[in-house]
Amino acid sequence: MEVHKRCHRKPDGRELILYGLKPLEGPPLAEPQEALAPAPHLRYHPLRREWVVYAAHRQERTFLPPKEHCPLCPSREGGFPTEIPFPTFQVAVFENRFPSFVPSPPPPPEGLPVPAERALGRCEVVVYTPSHTGSLATLTEEERLLLAWVWRERYQALYALEGVRFVMPFENRGEAVGVTLHHPHGQVYAYPFVPPLLEREAQAFRERPVLQELFPHLEPYRVDGEGGFLAFVPPFARYPFEVWVAPLERHPGLWTFSEEEMAAFARLLGRVVARYDALFGEPFPYVMVFHAAPLGEERTFHFHVEFYPPKRAKDKLKFLAGTELGASTFVVDALPEDTARRLREVL
Amino acid sequence: MEVHKRCHRKPDGRELILYGLKPLEGPPLAEPQEALAPAPHLRYHPLRREWVVYAAHRQERTFLPPKEHCPLCPSREGGFPTEIPFPTFQVAVFENRFPSFVPSPPPPPEGLPVPAERALGRCEVVVYTPSHTGSLATLTEEERLLLAWVWRERYQALYALEGVRFVMPFENRGEAVGVTLHHPHGQVYAYPFVPPLLEREAQAFRERPVLQELFPHLEPYRVDGEGGFLAFVPPFARYPFEVWVAPLERHPGLWTFSEEEMAAFARLLGRVVARYDALFGEPFPYVMVFHAAPLGEERTFHFHVEFYPPKRAKDKLKFLAGTELGASTFVVDALPEDTARRLREVL
Repeated sequence: MEVHKRCHRKPDGRELILYGLKPLEGPPLAEPQEALAPAPHLRYHPLRREWVVYAAHRQERTFLPPKEHCPLCPSREGGFPTEIPFPTFQVAVFENRFPSFVPSPPPPPEGLPVPAERALGRCEVVVYTPSHTGSLATLTEEERLLLAWVWRERYQALYALEGVRFVMPFENRGEAVGVTLHHPHGQVYAYPFVPPLLEREAQAFRERPVLQELFPHLEPYRVDGEGGFLAFVPPFARYPFEVWVAPLERHPGLWTFSEEEMAAFARLLGRVVARYDALFGEPFPYVMVFHAAPLGEERTFHFHVEFYPPKRAKDKLKFLAGTELGASTFVVDALPEDTARRLREVL
Repeated sequence: MEVHKRCHRKPDGRELILYGLKPLEGPPLAEPQEALAPAPHLRYHPLRREWVVYAAHRQERTFLPPKEHCPLCPSREGGFPTEIPFPTFQVAVFENRFPSFVPSPPPPPEGLPVPAERALGRCEVVVYTPSHTGSLATLTEEERLLLAWVWRERYQALYALEGVRFVMPFENRGEAVGVTLHHPHGQVYAYPFVPPLLEREAQAFRERPVLQELFPHLEPYRVDGEGGFLAFVPPFARYPFEVWVAPLERHPGLWTFSEEEMAAFARLLGRVVARYDALFGEPFPYVMVFHAAPLGEERTFHFHVEFYPPKRAKDKLKFLAGTELGASTFVVDALPEDTARRLREVL
């Protein structure tokens, strides 16, 4: 697939990259001048042994603006200046206005009683489509494939940055998971460390090909499949409607997929979301995360996507409370084999 | 403190224990006959390397009943039969009707593609007071002290059970954390394993006295204190209004507190909740968990209480989404030193 890419520097210094199947012509519209100086920093949690990010500037972030002030829509001449100063685009990626990690972070505050570090990295917003409504399920096949190529390109670009050790595209969808903008979009975080959870997964994959050992036994857990990819409810799901999407052959990330694999992956991802939306006849909230190999784990890590939906029924949420937050032990009231059947039969 | 204890076996086989400063006299009221057969089981998550509990019977659990059908109130002769078939009590503890762990679990399903185990253990509900309203902050000093002795006694009773390796009292408060019953109460889970998070904390304490090294530097993070106990916002807080309560001297759990320490601990816990409630002038939701030494860690673990509040402002929730759930990395938009000052100055 030939993807055209156009880079633009916003007046506040942030990068905006437009991706399309055709080159994007024409000059940008006028953009407001504004100084941004995000200053996140990291502090070490000595009992959980993980980094916590402090990003105080995020308190001001845009919260469910009216449709006509959506910052992720294309701009119109003389209209509300959005994040994308062009009258049209296909997929847009820009540096988050309220980042948790930045390429040139200031030093952390001095004199803290725990280790502190600069929040080096990068946080990006990925706008899936110029259309204000829709989802991974309603994109055209071509749009979804372009998006998959954008994820791939962002992996390559962000892992190439000095100091980045883990890159994670993700999507928060629905107000139930705290989404503040409804325009179809996701994000990519480039972390300066390997988060403990990923370190744990990487260690498991170093010891055994966990997913490949599991695949032959997943028939009762199968939700959908397509050209070498499987969508399934893990037999050890922590959320009632948790779904994973993975290639049957091990890949460290989608940067090693063939053209055919890219297309199959994009189609299957779209169908999983279509199944979710069919389940209760309404947009289904979820957190979707991509787990690709952290830096140095390319030889054993098995790329997969995890969907965490907060719903346990149409009108009931699965809350994380005492045992989940305080003991990292999830209690689930639906069996994976049952939710897999529901998701399999819904389409 | 002399605590009177009366054990009662419910017709469905569950144990109910009443605690009081005076003995509770009089026969129980009539109780409905009902067969319960909770059959939770454990499955192993091979990538996160933790146990997940499946408790399918929990789907039916009581959800925000009207006040007159509160199952945690005392029963009245001829009235709605609550969980406590007595017209009065001080503190009541009973086995959860919808348990995640049970003392005699059935074997797990056969033929699962991941390791499975019996969900051995015990889950209890701790009813703080016969009054339907109130909180840790509004209990009388005597009631709160009795409650602290009950926690202590439950620790001792549950750690004595065969196969139990970690015991955790906790409280989920407020609909924002999914509470289904408003009557002031908490829970205790007795786990048949050491959850990975606690294993991580225990490892940290085996290496260094993390909290005792921190205490001399906590002045900017101090919220309150009382007789050898400190309430503080950890300098590495993961929630904007996170507060920890800990004894300055190391104790593995509250079972080693002196009489004076029990009293100071109970008072301070009540004052932390009073500060929370004063913050926005309304009941403040939180998850509160007790971290005491898992089995075998008594020599180095430092008991402490962690409060995780889901609010970042009066009308704004802190949602856990992509980076928190998918990478175990928390992003916080308030600095601990600022929230500590707010909580310090609010009373």
